[in-house]
Amino acid sequence: MGQLVVQKYGGSSVANAARMKNVARRIAAARDDGKGVVVVVSAMGDTTEDLILLAHQVTDHPDDRELDVLLSTGEVMSSTLMAMALGSLGYDAISLTGYQAGIKTDSRYSRARITDIDPQRIERELNSGKIVIVAGFQGITEEMDITTLGRGGSDTTAVALAASLKADSCEIYTDVDGVFSADPRVVPEARKLSDISYEEMLELAVHGARVMHPRAVELGELYQIPILVASSFNNHPGTVIHGGVTMENRNKVRGIAHDMDVAKITLVGVPDRPGVAASLFEPLAEAGVSIDTIVQNAGLSGIADLSFTVSKNDLDKAMRLIGPVAESVGATGVHSSKEFGKVSIVGSGMQTAPGYAARMFKSLHDAGINIEMITTSEIRITCIIQEDKVKDALRALHKSFKLETGE
Amino acid sequence: MGQLVVQKYGGSSVANAARMKNVARRIAAARDDGKGVVVVVSAMGDTTEDLILLAHQVTDHPDDRELDVLLSTGEVMSSTLMAMALGSLGYDAISLTGYQAGIKTDSRYSRARITDIDPQRIERELNSGKIVIVAGFQGITEEMDITTLGRGGSDTTAVALAASLKADSCEIYTDVDGVFSADPRVVPEARKLSDISYEEMLELAVHGARVMHPRAVELGELYQIPILVASSFNNHPGTVIHGGVTMENRNKVRGIAHDMDVAKITLVGVPDRPGVAASLFEPLAEAGVSIDTIVQNAGLSGIADLSFTVSKNDLDKAMRLIGPVAESVGATGVHSSKEFGKVSIVGSGMQTAPGYAARMFKSLHDAGINIEMITTSEIRITCIIQEDKVKDALRALHKSFKLETGE
Repeated sequence: MGQLVVQKYGGSSVANAARMKNVARRIAAARDDGKGVVVVVSAMGDTTEDLILLAHQVTDHPDDRELDVLLSTGEVMSSTLMAMALGSLGYDAISLTGYQAGIKTDSRYSRARITDIDPQRIERELNSGKIVIVAGFQGITEEMDITTLGRGGSDTTAVALAASLKADSCEIYTDVDGVFSADPRVVPEARKLSDISYEEMLELAVHGARVMHPRAVELGELYQIPILVASSFNNHPGTVIHGGVTMENRNKVRGIAHDMDVAKITLVGVPDRPGVAASLFEPLAEAGVSIDTIVQNAGLSGIADLSFTVSKNDLDKAMRLIGPVAESVGATGVHSSKEFGKVSIVGSGMQTAPGYAARMFKSLHDAGINIEMITTSEIRITCIIQEDKVKDALRALHKSFKLETGE
Repeated sequence: MGQLVVQKYGGSSVANAARMKNVARRIAAARDDGKGVVVVVSAMGDTTEDLILLAHQVTDHPDDRELDVLLSTGEVMSSTLMAMALGSLGYDAISLTGYQAGIKTDSRYSRARITDIDPQRIERELNSGKIVIVAGFQGITEEMDITTLGRGGSDTTAVALAASLKADSCEIYTDVDGVFSADPRVVPEARKLSDISYEEMLELAVHGARVMHPRAVELGELYQIPILVASSFNNHPGTVIHGGVTMENRNKVRGIAHDMDVAKITLVGVPDRPGVAASLFEPLAEAGVSIDTIVQNAGLSGIADLSFTVSKNDLDKAMRLIGPVAESVGATGVHSSKEFGKVSIVGSGMQTAPGYAARMFKSLHDAGINIEMITTSEIRITCIIQEDKVKDALRALHKSFKLETGE
């Protein structure tokens, strides 16, 4: 066996028989290159959504375990169909479900984490010359119960398999050409990046870039698996996510992420004493509401305003939970608004070079955009702004940081 | 745990969400009676056919193993949906796939046989008070490959589980009210039988009655599992298939089966010497063509005419195979026709009482129906007749044997 490649194809790449046959030809080409090939497939097109609708026809509250069993069938179907499509091209292929592929998970239904992979079956099939098609997004618990991995599940399956099999590369094929300096639908001058570091990709993904799920990027970083993100619809070169950062890129903003899904809650007049923040956020955490940004400004009076953001879908739930708590800690009021979004500039070079924040704030100011909240990491600066200004902000920042010119 | 019942619901009984909820209420009623309940479900409505069409969109010749994986998803889907529907009624239910339910098979894809059942998981779930919903029609090989059981697969799953779990009863729910003295769509006076013996049911099923597949009946007989066949759409009492034959029924024809799917091949002038029949039928057996009836009339000359029947779908294949062989054994001609059907009278009492054959032949003669071929078993007489006379024959025989009057 020469090189081993793990490829992943998303739902839109296998949405119908014609696309599936097209993908089969791409897989066959990799095999023709003499590579061992393991392929991870998502469910066809809208299959997952259709299955969820079906569940809701029989019950208002589908059981988590049962819903996972139901949803797992989508990827099983596409994996067998892909194996058949390869067979019709004369290639020897075999589909494996999550459990047949040895993908073990914890038992957190609908958002299980991969705990271990037993690669024996895959290796046996590879050694017998077969192309192995693995149903993505799923695994099995110690109790032999089927789980699904939640968002980004098939990307995660692919990266985890690449790590377990010590593959030479991991290729994520999707419906876009790679990772761009900003969303090209908003910024037409956005440029495709030829490469990007794990941590940069992680920041972009967490803050709104949808091309790849953060957990798969994290896993790639953990095992140092280079990940190619490219289109399944053409042969453009794509973007490689890897560990190194080239010299030329060290002082650059690499990309700008944006996210429209920001709702903000502000507690007014919160007494600034230990334990208040914990008592506010614990009930939200228990209810599974993710808090994104938190900003607190304590004045001299010992009274603070505390703001935080959640996704818009979670706002109503968060408000129901936070109301009584806010009262009990003595806050004088609670406000909320769904009218927010955020823009984030990301680049490894930012940690060593000053001036990025100032330039970002000035660009937004020049574009007449007010900044509501600011958060930073070592390689990222995020501004929460009015939702209807997000696209303007993206274009202004893209221009200001000259992202349209070569890397 | 009190009584344990295994119920099976066919595809039309779970064809959509409304029917599924209706079935869930029936299952819940059995649970309310204090019974332990294991349910086997088929795929919803036309799911299996739809999946086969999908496979044929990607390849003209789907691989057997892959097609089994694909088809198995249909029953997995309906099992999880049924568990959800029960959950929404407030009942604790869990779905199990074939392999989770411990159903082991050989590796003959698309027509696997159950080799063993490991009931541990089902028993654990039953003991914890759960209703267990098993995906029918499927199992897993020693190599952990998914198989499907072929025709009658879900019925077979149910009967096998009833045997393995030592269930008190096995109930097959379908879209008809039970086993009838003849097909009520052809004979309006046909009467539902309150009970029937395994061997009678087997003969009826083999010779055209579609209410239950012969292999499930055979399995029921082997393990002496009483099987109730009833409708999932009403509460009519149904038919019990069991081992005993009541005194009153010993001298009766119990039912008449018919089958339109008969093609006949006749070899003219076959030399009547040992080994000729074997050399004719071996190539057909190897090609998977089932021979039904064989009739040979050897004359004094040492030359015989040999006729046999196959299903109409197999006729072209059979003719291609039989042509060269017929020539090589010295037959002077081969004729074939698709214009045949058959009627069979079945009843345990026939083996001890004479006169049934004579009465059958006279009834057909009186109705102006010519008999082409005759075969018999101890409890059955079958006549091959012209296809367009089958319905007339059914009605004539039903009347002649007074099947419309009580048992």
